[in-house]
Amino acid sequence: MTGIPASERAIDPRRIDEMIEALSHHGAWGETGVSRLVYSNEWSVAQEQVAAWMAAAGLDVETDAVGNVWGWRRGTEGGKAVVTGSHIDSQKPGGRFDGALGVVAALAAVEALGQRFGAPRRTLGVVSLCEEEASRFARTNFWGSRAVTGAIAPHEADRMRAIDGPTMAEVMHDVGLDPALIPTAKRDDIGAFIELHIEQGPLLEAAGLPVGIVEKITGYRQYWLEVRGEANHAGTTPMDLRKDPMAGAAEIISGVIDTAHRMGRPAVTTVGRMTVEPNGRAVVPERVGFTVDARHPEAAALETLLARHESRWHEVASRRGLELTVRVDSDRPPCPSDPGLVEALAGAAAEAAVPHMRMTSGAVHDAMQFAAICPVAMLFVRSKAGISHSPAEFTSLEDSVAGAEVLARALHRIAY
Amino acid sequence: MTGIPASERAIDPRRIDEMIEALSHHGAWGETGVSRLVYSNEWSVAQEQVAAWMAAAGLDVETDAVGNVWGWRRGTEGGKAVVTGSHIDSQKPGGRFDGALGVVAALAAVEALGQRFGAPRRTLGVVSLCEEEASRFARTNFWGSRAVTGAIAPHEADRMRAIDGPTMAEVMHDVGLDPALIPTAKRDDIGAFIELHIEQGPLLEAAGLPVGIVEKITGYRQYWLEVRGEANHAGTTPMDLRKDPMAGAAEIISGVIDTAHRMGRPAVTTVGRMTVEPNGRAVVPERVGFTVDARHPEAAALETLLARHESRWHEVASRRGLELTVRVDSDRPPCPSDPGLVEALAGAAAEAAVPHMRMTSGAVHDAMQFAAICPVAMLFVRSKAGISHSPAEFTSLEDSVAGAEVLARALHRIAY
Repeated sequence: MTGIPASERAIDPRRIDEMIEALSHHGAWGETGVSRLVYSNEWSVAQEQVAAWMAAAGLDVETDAVGNVWGWRRGTEGGKAVVTGSHIDSQKPGGRFDGALGVVAALAAVEALGQRFGAPRRTLGVVSLCEEEASRFARTNFWGSRAVTGAIAPHEADRMRAIDGPTMAEVMHDVGLDPALIPTAKRDDIGAFIELHIEQGPLLEAAGLPVGIVEKITGYRQYWLEVRGEANHAGTTPMDLRKDPMAGAAEIISGVIDTAHRMGRPAVTTVGRMTVEPNGRAVVPERVGFTVDARHPEAAALETLLARHESRWHEVASRRGLELTVRVDSDRPPCPSDPGLVEALAGAAAEAAVPHMRMTSGAVHDAMQFAAICPVAMLFVRSKAGISHSPAEFTSLEDSVAGAEVLARALHRIAY
Repeated sequence: MTGIPASERAIDPRRIDEMIEALSHHGAWGETGVSRLVYSNEWSVAQEQVAAWMAAAGLDVETDAVGNVWGWRRGTEGGKAVVTGSHIDSQKPGGRFDGALGVVAALAAVEALGQRFGAPRRTLGVVSLCEEEASRFARTNFWGSRAVTGAIAPHEADRMRAIDGPTMAEVMHDVGLDPALIPTAKRDDIGAFIELHIEQGPLLEAAGLPVGIVEKITGYRQYWLEVRGEANHAGTTPMDLRKDPMAGAAEIISGVIDTAHRMGRPAVTTVGRMTVEPNGRAVVPERVGFTVDARHPEAAALETLLARHESRWHEVASRRGLELTVRVDSDRPPCPSDPGLVEALAGAAAEAAVPHMRMTSGAVHDAMQFAAICPVAMLFVRSKAGISHSPAEFTSLEDSVAGAEVLARALHRIAY
């Protein structure tokens, strides 16, 4: 079937602009930010808005057991669907583009393809996933995409507690969802998943490019370390008699950060969260706990990075006579994109003359979950100064439209 | 006047035991701990108990404008008084000896001297100070002794807010005290102050001695440092593009702790409190704040320690491109004990055959405040394992009695 001429544009910039603007009012935070936590009132209203846009575009709308909203354009050939989308929940507060741009671009692309070409060969789906950010339930990210892949454990909704108090099961009931039905959200009708997302990093800006095609999502491991020593009076305990977990933690933190530095790009290691007990000015702490988040897109290099970290902290704790406990909270190998989908995206970008590069994603995304059930790929759009998870997050309309244009043309190549 | 024969004992151990036991019930925490915050109900009842003991011992009882309780045994010669005592407020929770043992020993000593020798030449005073720990008002320690020395600023009671909400002025009103009268608590009738206190450190235990005579209280400076960088996504920002305040803070913390180690005893430096923003697992922090508490009893060595710390953190912040702000919260030069009082204590210990050593105090105490208006000295009693500010704090009755015995004999030498 004839495609979209290189001289034309499939995407109308006004559609992208008006949908991003409309979503930004649900949970607006200050001038530019958004705070839209999963299953909140503002989140529910935003999901209803997405469903209304899907219906207006002529898609068959479906809401599943966890509140993911799906819009289907049925294909003439049947078979598994080609799905695109992202999430609309946000950080607390975050920006208006993280997740939302992927939903808006998916809607604009599938809408434009339908207007121009009618029914596709393969069924096309747009999805607005319910939760990705772990901003309301600290250890529950990917709730929406894990429901789709059947990766939610029995009774997980009862165990998980929101930062504002109630369990996941309770807040689901509050928005009319039944946690007992979560297993019904699992799907086996998806043949490919493509996610457009803002980069949330500085590499496209540094390269002067609006769009990146993600060949691989990074692998990572997230740890919680607790270093225990002996609480003592800050004035009366000589340095040589102390077992100071703060001294041990500082040495471990310097060590892991330096290790990632020395390994060079794209290795990254971050210590973002720390708690100290008793946290008193004049008391040598008894306990210092902190996170270590280490990432590398190459499996072997990731193993090397993790092995260096682990030997470092065991050596420091042992030498200093400190008690160390290590908990692994998340652990995922690198997730390669499907080569066929990558080539479709690259062909589409070349056809539309959108300057781009191939890259790896240092952030984790819903696409990583979908990889358990189907081929996946991602498209990144340039972030201003690499800033995300902040009201200062910004992606230009021009770049957003360039990304949606590549997405639309790739979907055309795959599904029409 | 004839003293106490070396073969006898001025102090009855049962008095020490029953008073420590009785006080421990006011604000009891678990089996062995105490939580008795200034101006709480349990604190008020405990101060009333102390006042009742003073009256029963034949002392003239007086409560001043901040709630310090004084008991006076008038001297035949008039002139300025010799005062002994400590505080009965506690950490939250703390142990039953910190402060309280100094009040109990003072009471037992002055009571025993009165029973044996009647009226002294110089007036003897026992004081139970209202506040030392800063456990209810984070930046208000020495409230009682600062009132005595006239060191409370106008309107300080209105500015200071308790961890449980109200201002110092409000909680004073609640226990029947008028903050407007604080200036009336200032005294000019004190000629010497001797404070008995648990060591709160491990040195006497290590030396196998029950008692220490404090020749000097350490000098110290307490800082609040804030290191600011740039918050960034933990996965998408290459290490070489980060301005990570956690990396800077870890290097500063390792540096200051190592500096105190290398300088050797008695230099001590502690980082006991830290806050991180936004404190997220997958976010390079924007801001890391932490305390630095550095102490040394020799003025010149303290200056050297502080200069090394300050040059270290400015160098780290500058090299890493981080913004550093430094606030000094407390700053006190070393406080030497009065040589005459030290000799009286040493003579008393020798006379009573109580094994002892001379030492410096690494902790700060009310005596440091009294030094502004009169000669001071301190007597330390051995702490089990050096533990304090904890329900695990323990000092044996035998050691407590040995300390009180030395105190009684020293008071006899000075005041009779």
